[in-house]
Amino acid sequence: MSHRTLKEEAFSANMQLPELGLVLFTFGNASAIDRDDGIFAIKPSGVPYAELRPEDMVLVDLEGQVVEGSLRPSSDTLTHAVLYRHWPHIGGIVHTHSTYATAWAQTQMDIPILGTTHADHLTVDIPCAPVMDDAMIEGNYEHETGFQILNDFKLRKYDPAEVEMVLVANHAPFTWGKTVAKAVYNSAVLEQLAQMAWIAHGIRPDVPRLKEALIRKHFERKHGKNAYYGQA
Amino acid sequence: MSHRTLKEEAFSANMQLPELGLVLFTFGNASAIDRDDGIFAIKPSGVPYAELRPEDMVLVDLEGQVVEGSLRPSSDTLTHAVLYRHWPHIGGIVHTHSTYATAWAQTQMDIPILGTTHADHLTVDIPCAPVMDDAMIEGNYEHETGFQILNDFKLRKYDPAEVEMVLVANHAPFTWGKTVAKAVYNSAVLEQLAQMAWIAHGIRPDVPRLKEALIRKHFERKHGKNAYYGQA
Amino acid sequence: MSHRTLKEEAFSANMQLPELGLVLFTFGNASAIDRDDGIFAIKPSGVPYAELRPEDMVLVDLEGQVVEGSLRPSSDTLTHAVLYRHWPHIGGIVHTHSTYATAWAQTQMDIPILGTTHADHLTVDIPCAPVMDDAMIEGNYEHETGFQILNDFKLRKYDPAEVEMVLVANHAPFTWGKTVAKAVYNSAVLEQLAQMAWIAHGIRPDVPRLKEALIRKHFERKHGKNAYYGQA
Amino acid sequence: MSHRTLKEEAFSANMQLPELGLVLFTFGNASAIDRDDGIFAIKPSGVPYAELRPEDMVLVDLEGQVVEGSLRPSSDTLTHAVLYRHWPHIGGIVHTHSTYATAWAQTQMDIPILGTTHADHLTVDIPCAPVMDDAMIEGNYEHETGFQILNDFKLRKYDPAEVEMVLVANHAPFTWGKTVAKAVYNSAVLEQLAQMAWIAHGIRPDVPRLKEALIRKHFERKHGKNAYYGQA
Repeated sequence: MSHRTLKEEAFSANMQLPELGLVLFTFGNASAIDRDDGIFAIKPSGVPYAELRPEDMVLVDLEGQVVEGSLRPSSDTLTHAVLYRHWPHIGGIVHTHSTYATAWAQTQMDIPILGTTHADHLTVDIPCAPVMDDAMIEGNYEHETGFQILNDFKLRKYDPAEVEMVLVANHAPFTWGKTVAKAVYNSAVLEQLAQMAWIAHGIRPDVPRLKEALIRKHFERKHGKNAYYGQA
Repeated sequence: MSHRTLKEEAFSANMQLPELGLVLFTFGNASAIDRDDGIFAIKPSGVPYAELRPEDMVLVDLEGQVVEGSLRPSSDTLTHAVLYRHWPHIGGIVHTHSTYATAWAQTQMDIPILGTTHADHLTVDIPCAPVMDDAMIEGNYEHETGFQILNDFKLRKYDPAEVEMVLVANHAPFTWGKTVAKAVYNSAVLEQLAQMAWIAHGIRPDVPRLKEALIRKHFERKHGKNAYYGQA
Repeated sequence: MSHRTLKEEAFSANMQLPELGLVLFTFGNASAIDRDDGIFAIKPSGVPYAELRPEDMVLVDLEGQVVEGSLRPSSDTLTHAVLYRHWPHIGGIVHTHSTYATAWAQTQMDIPILGTTHADHLTVDIPCAPVMDDAMIEGNYEHETGFQILNDFKLRKYDPAEVEMVLVANHAPFTWGKTVAKAVYNSAVLEQLAQMAWIAHGIRPDVPRLKEALIRKHFERKHGKNAYYGQA
Repeated sequence: MSHRTLKEEAFSANMQLPELGLVLFTFGNASAIDRDDGIFAIKPSGVPYAELRPEDMVLVDLEGQVVEGSLRPSSDTLTHAVLYRHWPHIGGIVHTHSTYATAWAQTQMDIPILGTTHADHLTVDIPCAPVMDDAMIEGNYEHETGFQILNDFKLRKYDPAEVEMVLVANHAPFTWGKTVAKAVYNSAVLEQLAQMAWIAHGIRPDVPRLKEALIRKHFERKHGKNAYYGQA
């Protein structure tokens, strides 16, 4: 993939974030990776979406070093780099401070699986990675944020190819996917699931988790080997 | 009705769903039936609304078999087929995962009738059909979803000509009507009723049901034989 | 005022209701009165806003009899007529089923005065007129809805020139004003106050009422004889 | 700075308020100051945003006296004047009645710092200045509102260069910044923080405050001397 194509892919993903109502001002960032080159394109730091151009995307290697671009990359760049380095199958990452998902992250609680909308996308509660130790926060913070996510997935034995979203406690969501377009899709779905879970919880504080048979059924019909959702 | 007219009717109904804020991405589907032919037109599975064209609608018979169309029909097609087969008076069906109605479905509770906005449309709580047995889920799931709705209406002695909406527990709403346009209308009304009931419940957890005399009055003025709402 | 001007005034007020997000489909209605003629123009019943034209407005006298127009007037016409007949100083009336105000009406509770946004417009809780007796409901219902509002104001000793909004329990809000434009403004303000009171109540269930000195100050600066809000 | 430039700056800031969904009708106002002249430009009182023109901005001195302009300045002008007089480093002020921030003000409670979105902007709970004494309300009210804010900051030992937002109990928010554009930005951020805190509080009533290490880290990366957020 040419650098130009990579930048355009990342640009286009970033521009969808305000359209989907997931970001305010300069909040949030999306990146897309070219696995052959080991280089990803990411939003520059603190630039408003309305002013963003494809050529503003910053190219960064897997250590988080800028390879091309005159602007400073997103302050969350090292988190993206860590995830790309350890999860070789993902092609794009999105970080937002979307309202409902971020509010759930502030509660430090997983978002429980309450319905088939959730099960259509993942078979477990949306994990909330715990708050970091003070030593990690004072160290290389964005780097450690990546490890906080990795360790939480390791501990829970979650496969990032199956669970493509996480909340970082007291912070906000990260999502990913085979492509950055899928990562953007996941950010919007996560926001929707977070809003629904909040409403359901408000109506019925002891709202039960979805039963196992329904979880399996909905996920399989969309993602299983005999999937019959979408076009073949 | 020509196949082309039927497809356009279904297409136009589907396109109203994102306009009314009832669906995200490819979620949801609407279908319209030609009772003479015993054929209905339904949204193809997993196609974004922005890319949908009238000719993409898939024609399906009452057994759920594709009659015409190159795309795979909605994964909920068998649910539509079951309802059309057993309820000969309905002309259209809509399924969404709209935010508030879906959150109520997650609570597994009926939406109580709390005001005249509700009574203008139906005289009972909006029914929530119970969660399926595991055997049914693992069987022909979408087929059984249709029967779950049918059985719930049978048990409650509800007439689908009077109660044109249902929640399927842990899943989401289905609505119908004499035409698919009416089914779309009902989906938007249901979402509004679900939102209001959630707010009222939040302000006053013991909010009382609407009294019987008001239920009757509002429904009769809109739907009774001396109805005086709308143009004659 | 010519009939044409009166119809245009009512039409323009009705068209603001969907723009302000206060109505769905055909819900709601606005009317404007010509006091010299004793005739008011009101929205026809059940016509979608997108199809409405100035000439569709129906002219009605103070007994609720149609004077001019080929369409049937709003089913709430008699409520408007009763209020116009008894409150000679009001020039326009609006009825909506706006989300937050209607949810409060469903709780059968007044909306408490919690802040200066409220006090800028009225000095008391927004009254919720009680549910009608069954006999009244089964009688001339819309006529009685008007009397339900009048009686509630009489009982509370409220002046409709100072309190320009009411909730009808289990139903929805009515607002009015010297002009129908003011009545529309009041409907939007009421919806905003209802939403804020719901949120404040959610954060702090024992949220205190606004203290008397602040109520007086804010109302006086906007409406008192030494008012200094707005242009002279 | 020419008077014309100052008016245009204030005008442009005012026009962003409805675009950002922070005001309804004539609610709210923004002002920008020229420190060399000791003159600020502020929105005229009670004029709808849609009708506002740059030349309508009213020029006012630090005592709140009109220097230029044919319209009456915002009724909150004296509050702006007091803050400008005592806080020489601020260049713009915004006052709105935005939904979530105003609802928090009605609860008379600070908005707790619950996440990094908050810590990116300030390191403390968003202060809610207490309700005024009756004597102050009945005196020079808008003048006293300014002092209510100043005194609250003095008592809490807050620096207005670090904490650029406040709630006035039972009233609504004020924000400021080095420029009026920054003050507008702060109003939108405050509204977002208020909404998230309300949601988080609804999900988990005992939601914990953000830990100190995270507060420091996020604020420093955006505002510290080694800040690495945004472009250098």
